[in-house]
Amino acid sequence: MSPLDELVGLLGDGLVTDRDVTDGYRHDKAIWAVGGWPLAVARPSSTAEVQELARWAARHGVALVPRGAGTGVAGGATAIHGCVVVSFERMSRILAIDEAAMLAVVQPGVINGDLKAAARERGLWYPPDPSSYAMSSIGGNVATNAGGLCCVKYGVTADYVLGLEAVLADGTVIRTGGRSRKDVAGYDLTRLLVGSEGTLALVTEITLRLRRPPPPSATLVATFGSLEASGRAVAAIVRSVDASLLEIMDRTAVRAVEAHARLELDTEAAAMLIAQSDAPGSAELGRMQEACEGAGATMVLTTEDESEGQMLLMARRLALTALERLGTVLVDDVAVPLPQLPEMFRRIDAIVAESETMVGTVAHAGDGNLHPLVVFDRNDAAAEARAVAAFEAVMAQALELGGTITGEHGVGTLKCAFLARQVGAASLALQRRIKAAFDPGGILNPGKVIGPPPGNPGNPGNPGKRPGGDPT
Amino acid sequence: MSPLDELVGLLGDGLVTDRDVTDGYRHDKAIWAVGGWPLAVARPSSTAEVQELARWAARHGVALVPRGAGTGVAGGATAIHGCVVVSFERMSRILAIDEAAMLAVVQPGVINGDLKAAARERGLWYPPDPSSYAMSSIGGNVATNAGGLCCVKYGVTADYVLGLEAVLADGTVIRTGGRSRKDVAGYDLTRLLVGSEGTLALVTEITLRLRRPPPPSATLVATFGSLEASGRAVAAIVRSVDASLLEIMDRTAVRAVEAHARLELDTEAAAMLIAQSDAPGSAELGRMQEACEGAGATMVLTTEDESEGQMLLMARRLALTALERLGTVLVDDVAVPLPQLPEMFRRIDAIVAESETMVGTVAHAGDGNLHPLVVFDRNDAAAEARAVAAFEAVMAQALELGGTITGEHGVGTLKCAFLARQVGAASLALQRRIKAAFDPGGILNPGKVIGPPPGNPGNPGNPGKRPGGDPT
Repeated sequence: MSPLDELVGLLGDGLVTDRDVTDGYRHDKAIWAVGGWPLAVARPSSTAEVQELARWAARHGVALVPRGAGTGVAGGATAIHGCVVVSFERMSRILAIDEAAMLAVVQPGVINGDLKAAARERGLWYPPDPSSYAMSSIGGNVATNAGGLCCVKYGVTADYVLGLEAVLADGTVIRTGGRSRKDVAGYDLTRLLVGSEGTLALVTEITLRLRRPPPPSATLVATFGSLEASGRAVAAIVRSVDASLLEIMDRTAVRAVEAHARLELDTEAAAMLIAQSDAPGSAELGRMQEACEGAGATMVLTTEDESEGQMLLMARRLALTALERLGTVLVDDVAVPLPQLPEMFRRIDAIVAESETMVGTVAHAGDGNLHPLVVFDRNDAAAEARAVAAFEAVMAQALELGGTITGEHGVGTLKCAFLARQVGAASLALQRRIKAAFDPGGILNPGKVIGPPPGNPGNPGNPGKRPGGDPT
Repeated sequence: MSPLDELVGLLGDGLVTDRDVTDGYRHDKAIWAVGGWPLAVARPSSTAEVQELARWAARHGVALVPRGAGTGVAGGATAIHGCVVVSFERMSRILAIDEAAMLAVVQPGVINGDLKAAARERGLWYPPDPSSYAMSSIGGNVATNAGGLCCVKYGVTADYVLGLEAVLADGTVIRTGGRSRKDVAGYDLTRLLVGSEGTLALVTEITLRLRRPPPPSATLVATFGSLEASGRAVAAIVRSVDASLLEIMDRTAVRAVEAHARLELDTEAAAMLIAQSDAPGSAELGRMQEACEGAGATMVLTTEDESEGQMLLMARRLALTALERLGTVLVDDVAVPLPQLPEMFRRIDAIVAESETMVGTVAHAGDGNLHPLVVFDRNDAAAEARAVAAFEAVMAQALELGGTITGEHGVGTLKCAFLARQVGAASLALQRRIKAAFDPGGILNPGKVIGPPPGNPGNPGNPGKRPGGDPT
């Protein structure tokens, strides 16, 4: 019996080898991270099936590439030649919402927005809100430690993960954490697995802390004559209130949105700042307004009406979509210490000028987390090279300012080469030893995050030949 | 040259071998975790000296036992026979407080309370507040992932650690995290090191996030005829407001405090609940009062005066001191899911009745984190055995209720045997492989947290003989 037949025997119709289907699993949203050709796509329905799959992969030395909803933008789910992609789309049940304990237990394939809705029905709230929340899965959010707009006040995905069930590379199951709000028993495996992009274990169940829903938000929008001034406003706001949202868009992003959606935005302003406060009856809105005026805002508009606030926020939510209408978008994701935000904006301007590439920047400004969105024409090789150079220059500048190459999207395939520059050789070597402690055979998502093992020069993202056929 | 002479050459007067001094470093506050006799106490003054020390220890196979201020209650800093205790008392400088970035960079020996004071002078706040904050060091707080009273709203030590500098077992230095508020570049080594009790690396520098100081607190005190009723009040409060403090004391703890300090507490009540709200102008205090009344409180008292609130809180702060006047105290530290809090109180009552041992319980109730304080006479061997049995029974019951053997104090020496019961054999084996990835020679705080390596039946806490002398 061939290994593949053996796997069919284990997973039944949970295994797909039809190339019309499997080809759709070659890459996530990072379409420029060229994916290999998977041998098959496994869609396990239970932890037991994931265990069988892990044991099978260990026996045959086949790489497993776990995958959530495929909305990642760093290539964490890029297929590897001859791998089995493990899609959790069938493990998409909300197993429990415990109102008294204020927690949810979910399978990894549950869509973030579905969990939010289910929690809301029970009078609870799951805060993490990556832009992809309507499509992305909790498993994928956990794999990348996804952030979003709420983070400035309510934290990132990791801040909500109380415990995990995970299948190790040898098929054994572990449970980390639990249902307690505080737990320091042993090493923090929960936090180690969160953000590890499927390279350490296959997460099969997630226990998440929920909160009471926040009060209605008041919203402020301000425009500035320079990005630097908007950065000063952010610094002043952070020092005076706990904003529940604090975003900046640059002129390129604003113009793209205006061209797309006609929201009557000020397309001459260098920067638009959007902030929210959800502290009812507090003076936060007024203090945010003062901070903006003190930083030289050219216009400040506030509303305590929540639906009006949602309208104002729409410009921010549409930015990526609007820029994608102008070309292929390389989504960068760097973070810098807050005081470096204005300088980082200045350096992005310099990169744009030098690379002659369009970059629209949106920023979770209150966290110092910027998404320079590099727009290019994929049919123009020279333009693509300039775009990639701009993408990498953004990371280099963030590192120079004491920042990070990724704030919330992950290292995936696209940023492996930059990880060592950030953390240094000793830390990378240590991270590889940790990987080996989990996965000595190198079965789980090999080559991602920490890159290929030393001595293996092969690029796991290399497409190679399609097994038994021609590459498309 | 003997290894010790070599070490004197490296550290100069930073090395102490005088037994009158080194004997003071045999144990931390967990005095019942019998410590071995250290060869010497090293007091490095710099990261470079810590590196020299690590290289020396690796060359000679000598165990290093890192130590903060010695306030730990789980025996994490218990000396091992023939080890070198590494005390960070000379590395106690606040290296920077960056007001704009809202962060502090400190050496591990900085006292928590000193950092709080320095931050306050700059208009900032370092929230984590273990009861020991006036004496305990940030390095020790990081080693145990210390909690405190603020956690229910503001989180634990780990939530404030942005980055670390650490010396690995082979003497190399790594940096984890940084100054960015969001950072997902590579595995979360910061979080893995926090709470690892010095078994993975020697932390030499800590970058901590600071917050704006909270508004003044309003305080509520309520008494209940049963612990169960107080548990119901906690559940109702957590569901309706973001209390900034939410504590319970049982009658035994209240009576001990009253006998000690004469605060006119109600010594007939089964439970006293203390809660605070720091949301100004909000309805939180009123809602907390309703929650208590709804749960059947026998008395509710509120004050918006902050110094009056501090007075009311004094009862809680004095609990351990008051019980220590009655005997030796074994400080337990379990956490359970919030809805299990009343049942856990009931089971502690049953343990008290069965073991005929005094247990006063204080709880960070909003987190489901309980400290049953087991009081016994150290000169009565039978009483000590009953106390240890009660201490262990508390852990067993917490596990049965889906909780954890330690919420904020750590595993140390005292709870190693219980860790496997909580996390299971597969997880413990994995944690040992992680330990080996960091410290293949087993130099760093061996035997703590994950216990002695398999195949080594020796108890590293065993006192053995004092080197070249008699055990006291």
